[in-house]
Amino acid sequence: MPKKNDSVILLTHGDGGIKTSELISGLIKKHLGNHILDKLEDSAIFSCPPDKKIAFTTDSFVINPLFFPGGDIGKLCVCGTINDLVTTGCVPASLSLSFILEEGFPINDFERIILSIKETLKSAGGRVEIVTGDTKVVEKGNADKIYINTAGIGFIEKDINIGPPGIKKGDAIIINGTVADHGLAVLSQRPEFNFKSNIVSDCAPLNLLVADMLSASGKIHAMRDATRGGLARVLIELSAASMMNFEIYEKEIPVKKEARGICEFLGLDPLYIANEGKIVAFVPENKAQKVLDAMKKNRYGKFSRIIGRVTGSAGSSGSNVILRTGLGTKRILDMHYSEQLPRIC
Amino acid sequence: MPKKNDSVILLTHGDGGIKTSELISGLIKKHLGNHILDKLEDSAIFSCPPDKKIAFTTDSFVINPLFFPGGDIGKLCVCGTINDLVTTGCVPASLSLSFILEEGFPINDFERIILSIKETLKSAGGRVEIVTGDTKVVEKGNADKIYINTAGIGFIEKDINIGPPGIKKGDAIIINGTVADHGLAVLSQRPEFNFKSNIVSDCAPLNLLVADMLSASGKIHAMRDATRGGLARVLIELSAASMMNFEIYEKEIPVKKEARGICEFLGLDPLYIANEGKIVAFVPENKAQKVLDAMKKNRYGKFSRIIGRVTGSAGSSGSNVILRTGLGTKRILDMHYSEQLPRIC
Repeated sequence: MPKKNDSVILLTHGDGGIKTSELISGLIKKHLGNHILDKLEDSAIFSCPPDKKIAFTTDSFVINPLFFPGGDIGKLCVCGTINDLVTTGCVPASLSLSFILEEGFPINDFERIILSIKETLKSAGGRVEIVTGDTKVVEKGNADKIYINTAGIGFIEKDINIGPPGIKKGDAIIINGTVADHGLAVLSQRPEFNFKSNIVSDCAPLNLLVADMLSASGKIHAMRDATRGGLARVLIELSAASMMNFEIYEKEIPVKKEARGICEFLGLDPLYIANEGKIVAFVPENKAQKVLDAMKKNRYGKFSRIIGRVTGSAGSSGSNVILRTGLGTKRILDMHYSEQLPRIC
Repeated sequence: MPKKNDSVILLTHGDGGIKTSELISGLIKKHLGNHILDKLEDSAIFSCPPDKKIAFTTDSFVINPLFFPGGDIGKLCVCGTINDLVTTGCVPASLSLSFILEEGFPINDFERIILSIKETLKSAGGRVEIVTGDTKVVEKGNADKIYINTAGIGFIEKDINIGPPGIKKGDAIIINGTVADHGLAVLSQRPEFNFKSNIVSDCAPLNLLVADMLSASGKIHAMRDATRGGLARVLIELSAASMMNFEIYEKEIPVKKEARGICEFLGLDPLYIANEGKIVAFVPENKAQKVLDAMKKNRYGKFSRIIGRVTGSAGSSGSNVILRTGLGTKRILDMHYSEQLPRIC
């Protein structure tokens, strides 16, 4: 347990000595402990279910501010890693948790983040566990409060192959709700913008939603979560990776009215703004309604919509994502040169 | 490929847009690419060999300075993660690589680090691959140049159970060479110390050494790499975890003459100084010579020595590590309250 008189992180909390042990036992093991993590070995050991493939991912989180409407860096790191895993069709199982803490970071805030991690794991169904971790402390001024890396492992049935090569002509393109909420919620807290809004981040673990989708149809061709760079980036990347052309109906893309207003006022495009609880799925036309119905029954899929379709193979000039705008015109979605908002995740 | 006129990392290199893609393709994929990483999917997918257990570890590296005698942060992150894995008896297979870059960090230095990662993977036998990664950039002043997180996965035979509970009375305690070299090599580069020395870091991937040890005897009871907190920390932790008492012969602990001199001059204890290529193994007495002989034939084990033995179960007063000093006296090794050197890894 951190000593009562330690109200902030000290360099000695990261030295691998007594104070590191106090911090790990008093906060991390206390709130996130399980039979694997509790061993505090350098490596976690667990079995691989027979006849499964492994999915493995990593992400570092440097979001600013740490606490924002609808979430915090703790919730974000769990959701981000779970969502990167589930787009493969896997069942997420084990996460690692590695902290880089700035000297002077309040221990109360650290505990709040750990508790948020615990809560998020619970809301993800309680079957994803933190199994290994690391804590480093750097001198004041060498980090911005706290950075978190999470790596994650999930297990996939051997015969499931979800990914860009599976995308086929005619596929329906489905999203599970409104775009741009995460980016705008974070933006609203930045001193340089600081506007009042009711927008909260969509940050959510999508493993149970994806499980529902796969129950509805095992034939989903590809999935990707739309984070940095927004919906547009995912569409452009998947179009390029699959060498297929997509057509997207702007009117069908769910955007909250308030979010649209903020974007118009600030000159931002909601399609390029980060989400943290949105997944884009490519589903065979004849399964689309069934998958959509299943999504709408899940708490994270109520506002799911078919937003476009795969129109065919790309020619030698390269793949395109065509946006049919609300005005009836067409434009090509292109990869913006730079992200509209830094340190969004 | 990063544009010629980009000589430093920009915030846009971390935004998930075109410049991020340029950096990843031009440096990371170029030097570290393989058939899994090249897909640049959010998760890497690979198979789990049948009837194996998984070992999973993570570490963030914040070492200062980035380049030091005998290594750099790139070599360190690969070695540190491989060494955390192999102490379980596993064969390391796949690593993740997640960068937090400070705006303004020279791209030349970044490439030097990537090349060092490549070189280290090769010197580890070429069978360990980087399979997934992430890149974030924070504003100048919010990190110290570059921090790297590596998580790693290895596979263990189902019937191998190496760990503290396996430690038995009579076990020989073996180390694979001189202690304190890494910590002193880093210290020699710090402005506040800045002394001339010939000590280079022992930073090395120990997977092939451990494979040789396990070939010599499948009966190794426990292993741990002696990093932060040095040899003393490992001994104290394993004594506590196994509830066994150890006796260590100070005269048998290999310490370079120059290292001993620097420690005496600076008032440091070499037993508490970090290593990055040292493993401590607990081996049944009747297998100790065979394992030792195998270790001495490996490039990272030439100066291996039996440095102590397990004297028996701890009583109710708790476990102890007794150091028999060079003077013939005994003292109890205790966990120092704080590490002697911050940001050593």
